[in-house]
Amino acid sequence: MAEADPIRRLIHAFSRLPGIGEKTAARLTFFVLDADESVARELSEALGEVRRRIRLCSVCCNLTEVDPCRTCRDPRRDGATICVVESVPGMHAIERTGEYRGRYHILHGLLAPLDGVGPEQLHLKPLLARLGDEVEEVIVATSPSVEGEATALYIQRLCRPLGVRVTRIASGVPIGADLEYADQVTLARALAGRREL
Amino acid sequence: MAEADPIRRLIHAFSRLPGIGEKTAARLTFFVLDADESVARELSEALGEVRRRIRLCSVCCNLTEVDPCRTCRDPRRDGATICVVESVPGMHAIERTGEYRGRYHILHGLLAPLDGVGPEQLHLKPLLARLGDEVEEVIVATSPSVEGEATALYIQRLCRPLGVRVTRIASGVPIGADLEYADQVTLARALAGRREL
Repeated sequence: MAEADPIRRLIHAFSRLPGIGEKTAARLTFFVLDADESVARELSEALGEVRRRIRLCSVCCNLTEVDPCRTCRDPRRDGATICVVESVPGMHAIERTGEYRGRYHILHGLLAPLDGVGPEQLHLKPLLARLGDEVEEVIVATSPSVEGEATALYIQRLCRPLGVRVTRIASGVPIGADLEYADQVTLARALAGRREL
Repeated sequence: MAEADPIRRLIHAFSRLPGIGEKTAARLTFFVLDADESVARELSEALGEVRRRIRLCSVCCNLTEVDPCRTCRDPRRDGATICVVESVPGMHAIERTGEYRGRYHILHGLLAPLDGVGPEQLHLKPLLARLGDEVEEVIVATSPSVEGEATALYIQRLCRPLGVRVTRIASGVPIGADLEYADQVTLARALAGRREL
């Protein structure tokens, strides 16, 4: 017994999302079919709207309805620092700390030669275009993964000749973690990055 | 810094789905924004289509494009037994066993007075309407939960006066499970339901 075609198609469409396998996709589909009609309508409309109305900010490559984006328009932000992040959620994570009031630049990816992601796939050109007189520091806030480190190094080599200071966020043992369970690489990094108390 | 409105709306729409919290909803949204345009389009269209084209089978209450549904139209199925299930996925689970070739009836819920689900919310009337001369047995295949048991009992009381045999699927220790870890209620049920070897 096969499900009706529209049901199978919706299961397939859900299963293209990350972390959603065939079983979860089926569960979501039957939920949608049983739930209030507004659940499917809202989701369908929001998906259409997001594709129609959201584009990249021409300055920082943030996802935005207005160009330049709200963050780039904000006159209270300090134009002397640019924090480079992999993705929009990365930018939100930094914003949530409440400690940073500079500008951002979103790469939309990390260098991953094995997956065919080279420098031309990242939004690096608009970053270089921003490095005028005003910018003093570029903070590279990519994840401390292999790809994140490689990308940080690449950005450092790009920006250094332009006379801009390039810094990297610290890696080490996370606050609240148990030293016993920290992995060797993290601990080694924490040791190497030690500071005067 | 707030996300743009269409982004926030999509996060909200995703978070109405079961098992998807605010964080997962945001992850899905940013995936959709970064992914191929077809991901959002397919999902949006499939959601619309499913609402437009899928309805309940007037015989068995299955979700279907054609009425009566394919299962009800299938002449090779035995009309003497009706297997009553809570939901369409329940019907698929029984189908996957390959052991059942009778008809189905889908309740679209279980009795749950505390949640305001009474007999009139379940699709019981179309079930009673099917209990003509041909039907000899109604197999109640709801889950062995409190609600599933209550629903089974209710169906038994409804159908018995009509001269139909009402049976219930067996509960017990699942195949492959370790007896040591079976809960008391399941074990007691397995004991009570013992059979001659």
